[in-house]
Amino acid sequence: MTGASAFGWEVLGTALLILFGNGVCLANSLRSSASRESGWLLIAFGWGFAVFIGASVADPSGGHLNPAVTLMLAINGGVSWSLVPFYIAGQLVGAIIGAVLAYLTFKQSIDDHGDGNLGGNFFTIPAHPGNAWNAVTEFIATSALLLFIALGPSGGELGPMTYFGVAIIVVAIGMSLGSPTGYAINPARDLGPRLAYAFLLPIKGKSSAQFAYAWVPIVAPLAAAVFVGLLASVLT
Amino acid sequence: MTGASAFGWEVLGTALLILFGNGVCLANSLRSSASRESGWLLIAFGWGFAVFIGASVADPSGGHLNPAVTLMLAINGGVSWSLVPFYIAGQLVGAIIGAVLAYLTFKQSIDDHGDGNLGGNFFTIPAHPGNAWNAVTEFIATSALLLFIALGPSGGELGPMTYFGVAIIVVAIGMSLGSPTGYAINPARDLGPRLAYAFLLPIKGKSSAQFAYAWVPIVAPLAAAVFVGLLASVLT
Amino acid sequence: MTGASAFGWEVLGTALLILFGNGVCLANSLRSSASRESGWLLIAFGWGFAVFIGASVADPSGGHLNPAVTLMLAINGGVSWSLVPFYIAGQLVGAIIGAVLAYLTFKQSIDDHGDGNLGGNFFTIPAHPGNAWNAVTEFIATSALLLFIALGPSGGELGPMTYFGVAIIVVAIGMSLGSPTGYAINPARDLGPRLAYAFLLPIKGKSSAQFAYAWVPIVAPLAAAVFVGLLASVLT
Amino acid sequence: MTGASAFGWEVLGTALLILFGNGVCLANSLRSSASRESGWLLIAFGWGFAVFIGASVADPSGGHLNPAVTLMLAINGGVSWSLVPFYIAGQLVGAIIGAVLAYLTFKQSIDDHGDGNLGGNFFTIPAHPGNAWNAVTEFIATSALLLFIALGPSGGELGPMTYFGVAIIVVAIGMSLGSPTGYAINPARDLGPRLAYAFLLPIKGKSSAQFAYAWVPIVAPLAAAVFVGLLASVLT
Repeated sequence: MTGASAFGWEVLGTALLILFGNGVCLANSLRSSASRESGWLLIAFGWGFAVFIGASVADPSGGHLNPAVTLMLAINGGVSWSLVPFYIAGQLVGAIIGAVLAYLTFKQSIDDHGDGNLGGNFFTIPAHPGNAWNAVTEFIATSALLLFIALGPSGGELGPMTYFGVAIIVVAIGMSLGSPTGYAINPARDLGPRLAYAFLLPIKGKSSAQFAYAWVPIVAPLAAAVFVGLLASVLT
Repeated sequence: MTGASAFGWEVLGTALLILFGNGVCLANSLRSSASRESGWLLIAFGWGFAVFIGASVADPSGGHLNPAVTLMLAINGGVSWSLVPFYIAGQLVGAIIGAVLAYLTFKQSIDDHGDGNLGGNFFTIPAHPGNAWNAVTEFIATSALLLFIALGPSGGELGPMTYFGVAIIVVAIGMSLGSPTGYAINPARDLGPRLAYAFLLPIKGKSSAQFAYAWVPIVAPLAAAVFVGLLASVLT
Repeated sequence: MTGASAFGWEVLGTALLILFGNGVCLANSLRSSASRESGWLLIAFGWGFAVFIGASVADPSGGHLNPAVTLMLAINGGVSWSLVPFYIAGQLVGAIIGAVLAYLTFKQSIDDHGDGNLGGNFFTIPAHPGNAWNAVTEFIATSALLLFIALGPSGGELGPMTYFGVAIIVVAIGMSLGSPTGYAINPARDLGPRLAYAFLLPIKGKSSAQFAYAWVPIVAPLAAAVFVGLLASVLT
Repeated sequence: MTGASAFGWEVLGTALLILFGNGVCLANSLRSSASRESGWLLIAFGWGFAVFIGASVADPSGGHLNPAVTLMLAINGGVSWSLVPFYIAGQLVGAIIGAVLAYLTFKQSIDDHGDGNLGGNFFTIPAHPGNAWNAVTEFIATSALLLFIALGPSGGELGPMTYFGVAIIVVAIGMSLGSPTGYAINPARDLGPRLAYAFLLPIKGKSSAQFAYAWVPIVAPLAAAVFVGLLASVLT
């Protein structure tokens, strides 16, 4: 795997992840959407299946799509440290592209919505203001995801169905642990669409991109990556 | 694979796809249906599982069921150009038959409904009138489907579970990208039932078949097929 | 496979199928149930997963659980005609036992319900009175199930995941084709619980078992078995 | 497998099971939760997928996570009797840890809820007071789970997808048999969080831990383990 190849496949896979993930939030929110207010089952299945398509298409690079996955695997020996910057750059670029694609998919519905307060469809917003506890929530939820990836059935055992297993875990995290913080569990998934929303999307009456919260879904998932990376090195 | 065999299996598979797909829309709409107004989760899972049964049964011809899939595979070298007309003819004939079977399944419920405005259960109707943007939505959604088929886990790796993977992607497209245009993502899926509704189904007080929109779910998916076919040829 | 073994495994598997299938209907209906009025998604997934557990446990006999499946396989050469009576007897006995187990599971909730009109939780009741059209609906829905079993991914290819595939098809039939008749698609699934309801269950103020309808979910699925059995013999 | 290893993996797997299982109940209940009142589909899928992550991560010890599974396998010869105490101790300790982790994940939402009557999110509470009938319900539901594990597709056939199959069975039990008693079907899943709630969690205005009911979800699942263990020894 060259750095350029890792970068390219992670761009493609993460763009699909965010296109589908931001898409399901918009589909659940916008005034003219036939799936409006379908609720949390739509959100949880939608984000999980978004991982399935993104990771499956990005199979040549391992379908990380998440700097926390890349960091955990680097610590655990599953990916070379020299490739890590290419992975993370690809994930961030892909996430920005995915948010723009979601915007284009819903262009008419967004224009028709008549309220620019749409940031929560692109990036995460916590239900409560205590960011130390929000970081605890993101740390626990990301640790569960990474424990499954590090210790659960591996690509060697499951083959391509691995990505379906990861998708179901992401559905599970959404259902069980997602409501307090909106479950970023992925720095690129949160920061990329937050930047796209703030600086690229021409939405009228746009609400704040709430950068004061942006550190939580970066720091807590990366801390979980260090924790699970070290733990998995001991256990396996 | 002979042309006749490709034609026959695609007729059978696409008829099942549309029987189940049009069926779930009728089940969600008709006045006397016990599943009335179950909502978008029913629609999205129903259409995805419709692909699972249709493609599984049509396994001998590869279970395309979609001219955009056939065209993409022809460009990418996965199917012979000489078979393409047989595939597409089978898909269109199958889609018309499927719409008639869905009508027969729900005959009494349709008669009881008391309102002939049922076209949206058979073909797609966009939420907004701008067809350039509707074409963008259909192009993006179809491209995602074709990227999974071209680059995701292949039949060689997954065996028959491939069709389950494709079904989940169709569920995902419905959940995440489907609401602006009703996600045809397949020229035969839209045109076949539109023709059946306009010319075959004896529904009283029938609403218009809206042929002015019919080009979008034909042109945009085929454009996506060309785009992904060329892209996949470069990437693989 | 001896006749006694086929009988025994089909009793066990069909009892589990009906325990779970009747159970999900009661769970959706009874006054004190925490899952009351969850709706059609619960019903459709519940019946599909009921097939998964029943067929998986009855794997030694092939997990038919349905006289229509047994008849289609006998026509198609997949099971010996001499075993057919043992299969069907086991399915009917199992279905009666399953209905009794569902009653016992929900004993207190049924007593608390205060309304004995519970037949529709055990056997099927059509939405409309025209039994010729109801038979068409059951014939089409059963044919789709049997086409998947006859022509879709086989046990030889998928191994034990075959039963998961069949379960998803049953979910699909429930979502897409189930509402007009309640989708018996299986003579034992309907007749067994109808007999149990009429003659065994001590429910106060019990409503009619509606035997006038009972022939439809027997005759139409068996006709579909003959049709698909002959068709599959030609196609494969 | 050493006793210490069995203990450790069962702690980890059961902690994940209860984190996700208690989590989905809290997500469905708490006032500030975006997934509040999503209903029984969320509960049933959430608990099922909780089993998937817990059992997958605890694969080295077989992912029992349930004293009834361990006891059934010991009777059936699938696990050594000398390891049983280590398994069960690990399951109980893990369940207590999981309840604490769920509390920490939802700390702010619990504090904000303004009502300490949250026990039903951690342990099970039956809908009706007759504990003999409640024990029947738990016995039937646990027997179904254990019959699938003992007789359904085994790890040898399905490999790691076995855990997905078990997860679907737990979804099915929740949908079909779960509402009368809240489907503990696992002594550790009920007792661990009940102890954690009673003695560890600092919730204001806490309701009773209802220890008078605690014997039912211990005794009935273990009785089912004896029944299925003996039955499976005869049948296989």
